Order: sequence, then structure tokens, then C-alpha cells
Amino acid sequence: MARWQPDAQGRLANAALDLFEEHGYENTTVIEIAERAGLTKSTFFRYFPDKREVLFGGGTVSDLLVEAIVSAPPAAGPLDAVADALDALGRTVFTADRREFSARRQAVLNANTELREREALKRIDLTASMIEALGRRGVPSLTARVAAQLGTLAWGIAYDQWIDAGSADFGPLARQALAEVRAVEVVR
Amino acid sequence: MARWQPDAQGRLANAALDLFEEHGYENTTVIEIAERAGLTKSTFFRYFPDKREVLFGGGTVSDLLVEAIVSAPPAAGPLDAVADALDALGRTVFTADRREFSARRQAVLNANTELREREALKRIDLTASMIEALGRRGVPSLTARVAAQLGTLAWGIAYDQWIDAGSADFGPLARQALAEVRAVEVVR
Repeated sequence: MARWQPDAQGRLANAALDLFEEHGYENTTVIEIAERAGLTKSTFFRYFPDKREVLFGGGTVSDLLVEAIVSAPPAAGPLDAVADALDALGRTVFTADRREFSARRQAVLNANTELREREALKRIDLTASMIEALGRRGVPSLTARVAAQLGTLAWGIAYDQWIDAGSADFGPLARQALAEVRAVEVVR
Repeated sequence: MARWQPDAQGRLANAALDLFEEHGYENTTVIEIAERAGLTKSTFFRYFPDKREVLFGGGTVSDLLVEAIVSAPPAAGPLDAVADALDALGRTVFTADRREFSARRQAVLNANTELREREALKRIDLTASMIEALGRRGVPSLTARVAAQLGTLAWGIAYDQWIDAGSADFGPLARQALAEVRAVEVVR
């Protein structure tokens, strides 16, 4: 039995990504992922409830967003608080050393409907986390929903640019995307 | 073998909803759904690629949205075109005789992660259809994305009200929700 390793979750994700690229998501088993990572099936299931989940690393992103929004300066407007949350993502999750993994991961997700479905629900759940965090700042419900939707849109735009671009950091890309989304005059 | 029937798709959806309520989504098989509807498994798969899909009736909603947006008056702004699309939904899909089915269906979806995942991806795909249709009207890409996101948000708000409310029609609820979303001053 493999012993617990501090980076087991990351090794499982890397092994899964390699195997999904080599053989396709459908043709890869949890046992193969665990073996490639030098771990056991039971270790896999200690980190992930199912095969789909291995490319979605746990609930840390949600906690990060909530923490950043709740702790934004009192005077910050809803979209300023959302911008702080996207900055926090850039500092801790979408870091330069994760760019290549993220680009490969996204290509695998885009090619598989099951994975796209899970990604879609994760996005809704993360938007809901932002709405809840904005609510804790006293932002009215509908305003929080609009701000979170616009933030999610800017996030998606910045993410696509970040994995394509090769050099720009996620945080500044997200700030720029959010500024452009804010400036859209669609309300007329 | 059951012969093709004009309402087979609707009978399968009704049978599936009954069975999901009685035994749970996980504990219901495609064969049981087909039998309850008085049809065969092969007929089921003529309408739906898998069990998940039986509560998501085909691609007609996407076509409807695109048609309504593309054929909105030339002077209509992006959100006006989106409002027309939501009206079209209310006239043809979310009609009064579908309210009870829709409310029961939503309760089943909310209780199952697999179904929530498919619903989430459908929502993204429908938003993408709206963005594409707005693009065909000459709406700039980013404006189209913002308008479609706000439209999807208003849709969700109106839908929840519609299945709860008991009497108001979907179209007016959606127009009201979209007007409120437009009025949110989040951009400051």
C-alpha cells in the first residue's frame, strides 16, 4: 500500500491528465490513474468521489472567492469585491506554473461532454458562492446576482486569454476583462 | 413492438418523471421508463441518447431562442431582442399547461447531481445560442455575452417564480425580471 503523500492529489491529477490525453477520458479507469501516480484506488477515492472529479481539485476555489469578497474593503462596490476575488485566484490558483497544466486540462474538458457537464455545474456553484459572499457584505440579492454573473463572465474571458497567451498573468487579465464588461452599454 | 406514436417523447418524459419521483433517478432504468410509457427501450433511444436526457426535451428551445432574437425588429437593442426570446419561450414552451410538470421536473433535477450537471451544461449551451444569434444581428461580441448572461439570469428568476406562483404567465414574469436586472446599478 502506498503511504499518504503530501502531493498525492496533484500526482493523481497529473496522471489522469496524461492518461486522458493518451487514451481518452472514457477509456481510462480510476485504477489506471492510481497506478500511474504510484498510488492505490482507495487513495484515489480518499481525494475524489469519482473519475470526473479528478480534474476539479476540491472546494478550495470556492473558499478563496468567499474569503476575498468578504474581506474586501468596506467601501468597495460589488464588482470591486468580485475583482478582488479574481485577483486572489490569480495569486493562488491560476499561477504561472499552472498555466500549461490548465491549458491541457481545458482541452480535455472541452472534448468530453461528461466533463463539460461537471465544469458547468462547478461554475454555477462558484457563482452561487460569490452571490452568498456578496450577500454577507450587505449587497442586495439581485445586485449580487448581476455582479456575480458579470464576474463569472470576466473570469471566463480572462481564463481563455491566460491559457492561450503565454505570458500575461491571470489577475491583470481578469481586471481588464471585468473593466471591459463593466463598460458595456447593454442596458439601453 | 410498439409502433411510433406522435406523443411518444412526451409520454416517455411523463413516465420518467413519475418513476424518478417514486423510486429516485438512480433506481430507475430506461427499460422501466419505456415500459411505463407502453413503449420499448429502442423507442426510448430513438428520442433520447441516455437516461439523463429524458427530462431535457431536445434542441427545440435553442432553435426558438435563435429564431426570436434574429427576427426581432431591426431597431431593437440586444436586451430587447433577448426579451423577445423570453416571450417566445412563454408562448410555446413554458405554457400554463406545462407549469405543473415543470415544477415537478425541477424538484427532481434539484435532488440529483447528475441531472443538475446536465441542466448546467444546457444552460451554458442556450446562453451560447443567444450570443450567436445576437452576433447575427451585428451586436459586438462582448455586448452579446453580457446581454445573454443577463437574459439567462432573468430567465432563471422568472422560471422560479413561474413554477412557484400558480397563476402568472412566464412571459410577463420574464419581462419584469429583465427590467429589474437592467435597472441594477452594479457598474459603479
